[in-house]
Amino acid sequence: MAQKTTGKEESRAADTKQMDNIVSLCKRRGFIFPSSEIYGGLASAWDYGPLGVELKNRIEAFWWKEMTRLRDDIVGIDAAIMMHPRVWEASGHVENFTDPLVDCKECKQRFRADQMPEENQKSGRCPNCGGELTAPRQFNLMFKTHLGPVEDDASQVYLRPETAQGIYVNFKNVVQTSRVKIPFGIAQVGKAFRNEIVTKNFIFRTCEFEQMEMQFFVHPSEDVKWFEYWKEQRMAYYAKLGIRPDRLRFKQHGPDELAHYAKDAFDIEFEFPFGWRELEGIHNRTNYDLSRHSEFSGKDLTYLDEVSRERYLPYIIETSAGLTRSVLMVLSDAYDEETVEAEGDVRTVLHLHPALAPVTVGVFPLVKKDGLAELAQEIERGLRDDFTTFYDQGGAIGRRYRRQDEIGTPYCITIDYQTKEDNTVTLRFRDSMEQVRIGVPELISRIRQEIRDYKRV
Amino acid sequence: MAQKTTGKEESRAADTKQMDNIVSLCKRRGFIFPSSEIYGGLASAWDYGPLGVELKNRIEAFWWKEMTRLRDDIVGIDAAIMMHPRVWEASGHVENFTDPLVDCKECKQRFRADQMPEENQKSGRCPNCGGELTAPRQFNLMFKTHLGPVEDDASQVYLRPETAQGIYVNFKNVVQTSRVKIPFGIAQVGKAFRNEIVTKNFIFRTCEFEQMEMQFFVHPSEDVKWFEYWKEQRMAYYAKLGIRPDRLRFKQHGPDELAHYAKDAFDIEFEFPFGWRELEGIHNRTNYDLSRHSEFSGKDLTYLDEVSRERYLPYIIETSAGLTRSVLMVLSDAYDEETVEAEGDVRTVLHLHPALAPVTVGVFPLVKKDGLAELAQEIERGLRDDFTTFYDQGGAIGRRYRRQDEIGTPYCITIDYQTKEDNTVTLRFRDSMEQVRIGVPELISRIRQEIRDYKRV
Repeated sequence: MAQKTTGKEESRAADTKQMDNIVSLCKRRGFIFPSSEIYGGLASAWDYGPLGVELKNRIEAFWWKEMTRLRDDIVGIDAAIMMHPRVWEASGHVENFTDPLVDCKECKQRFRADQMPEENQKSGRCPNCGGELTAPRQFNLMFKTHLGPVEDDASQVYLRPETAQGIYVNFKNVVQTSRVKIPFGIAQVGKAFRNEIVTKNFIFRTCEFEQMEMQFFVHPSEDVKWFEYWKEQRMAYYAKLGIRPDRLRFKQHGPDELAHYAKDAFDIEFEFPFGWRELEGIHNRTNYDLSRHSEFSGKDLTYLDEVSRERYLPYIIETSAGLTRSVLMVLSDAYDEETVEAEGDVRTVLHLHPALAPVTVGVFPLVKKDGLAELAQEIERGLRDDFTTFYDQGGAIGRRYRRQDEIGTPYCITIDYQTKEDNTVTLRFRDSMEQVRIGVPELISRIRQEIRDYKRV
Repeated sequence: MAQKTTGKEESRAADTKQMDNIVSLCKRRGFIFPSSEIYGGLASAWDYGPLGVELKNRIEAFWWKEMTRLRDDIVGIDAAIMMHPRVWEASGHVENFTDPLVDCKECKQRFRADQMPEENQKSGRCPNCGGELTAPRQFNLMFKTHLGPVEDDASQVYLRPETAQGIYVNFKNVVQTSRVKIPFGIAQVGKAFRNEIVTKNFIFRTCEFEQMEMQFFVHPSEDVKWFEYWKEQRMAYYAKLGIRPDRLRFKQHGPDELAHYAKDAFDIEFEFPFGWRELEGIHNRTNYDLSRHSEFSGKDLTYLDEVSRERYLPYIIETSAGLTRSVLMVLSDAYDEETVEAEGDVRTVLHLHPALAPVTVGVFPLVKKDGLAELAQEIERGLRDDFTTFYDQGGAIGRRYRRQDEIGTPYCITIDYQTKEDNTVTLRFRDSMEQVRIGVPELISRIRQEIRDYKRV
């Protein structure tokens, strides 16, 4: 676990500045914009711009490949956001997914009772105006809407507050149609919605967000073994994603923090610029979910082991990661301002894993004239089927490199006069800023190899 | 345009049967399940199973690559589902996005006034019980919900009924951050929600669905040229996707069908088993959207041409395709029951484009014993980084091929005794059922080549 060595105050100032720099870069280069910005924005909703959507899609694809394609014991699904309302009774969300809220009788402001300064909690007086507060009332965090034209209770549905339930209600369908045998997992990526009163820290906590969840079904006697397995696997995943290990740690939930359904739970926390925060939860959910859905639906959700002939309700080990949070983690971890001694200045650079970078290859002609621009464009087009490319012919070559460094482009290719003679180009690496001369026909296989072999320095 | 040659009744019976077969295959093999099925389902919501999610993701990835990565004039974004409520006033949805509904005063059933049998529309009598109908009332199709704990008008937000508006409100942001110059486009894939009263035809019309939209910004004097260009491009896209050309056609909107903002509009229709239906709309939206958002937000959304110094509000050519509908199109077009004369039986096969198939390569040991299973598993693992694979060692080899044919797996590899001697395997093609002998080291490049060169026979 990393310890800060700087003084607390100093470190906090630096972190605020780093967060500001990241938000500013995101806006300036088209990663992330405030949603509906021309209308003054909407709560803490965010839109992903041209670079942001590529980064987010690649993190999702990386997770999906790791969790499904590279394994033979996990399959994917994609369930609807709107589910039958009984699902949320069975899951406990209708009853328990609430925050305590208080209103000020004077200024009419609303607060989360458990997040007010302690003195106001005790005095029952408003932190804003000193007026009297109401007693706390429980407010459900699920968004409600109505299916069909009549707004009555019968047609009331919720926007899912988590993707996990879509997996549980499809457990039987998956067992019956995909030759899976316990132990096996079901993975899903998708949007979830929580009517959070307090949203903050850029894209860290928002009402609309994306989850990457995997539910692993195991024999009840093997839950501890698989829980340990998935703790290890998920931490290894972040290393593979190129995240610095000293910015990651486990945090176990104490007995008083455990959700009512959980036997054991660990968070994987990342050290964001604003402190250590949960990135992913690994939970031993026991057979709570399947037993509740069995009870509420009246359907038999037991599993029959075809070899032992044992019939049982599986335990579930859940790994629940935030995709939106992962975007912020990846940006925070990758962001750097480096002194370039040879050139006597500072460059902003994103040390993104090449598999995640929004642009994989930047292609530049040294100059526009003498046919170099046309030649560079031809080479660029030849790479598009394999990589995301960006062609840039404007300004000094050094500035073009820096523009790509700032968005994390791992490889840049420069076409010069020598290219016309021997069909070689300069391949420049983002992290080391080293350059090598390489033949055009070798470009695709070399870049593929570099992506596969990437190690963060 | 394809004409049916069979009699109308006969054809309808055949088509209903084909639709039933597709729905049945989707359920049986894990493509698509009714949502929340253990609770009796929810309206017409559907969940995508292990094969369905792979198919849907691949269609999305294919579109995204075609529309963004392979071009240099289109960038992507991903806007939030919840947008500022003023967006929907500016877009005209609050005012105009309505269906006329009537209620029966007797049996209390509700109908769309414009979709009732003509005689009932005239008589004002219920098609169900003959009771008296109310006058039609306009019902807005947008789902409403509330952001924040208080359900008042101020916090009312809508689930977006289309993804397009997320592009328009980000037009300025994209221009300022992404070096794009008109003509250029912005692409987006995402969920949209419409409170449809009549949902039908499996996943064709559902309340929750996914769109793949691209908005192309052009000079007002060039709108007709670009409209024609995009008509051609989008039709060519479906050919590239492997869809049979005689199942696709254009349908122009007549003057009375045109949306209030549109100067010209064509649908691309596909011949589903239940008839010709809209798959994608290509619309000349003029400068309606940007001028409305400019008016409602008070922000200047004009574009400055840096060469001509002309400042103007661009026209928009929109290509709006349904992802969910594309899944059904691809399945309908690919589904076939073929007589295999050599084997004297019928096989069910999905002639999916290999880039779309949920499983790219099936890998089988001829028999489990003598180390063939281990060898096959080793070869299968070696393919995972490049392709989605499925390992199957159960049952006769012919049955294993058929199971893969049914889910559209384009390539199967069989490992036999000869493999142990010379490291070659049998590569079998789904469509032709031909087999070739090929060395293991050549597998990846050969399969890549086959995917690139695929032509539907």
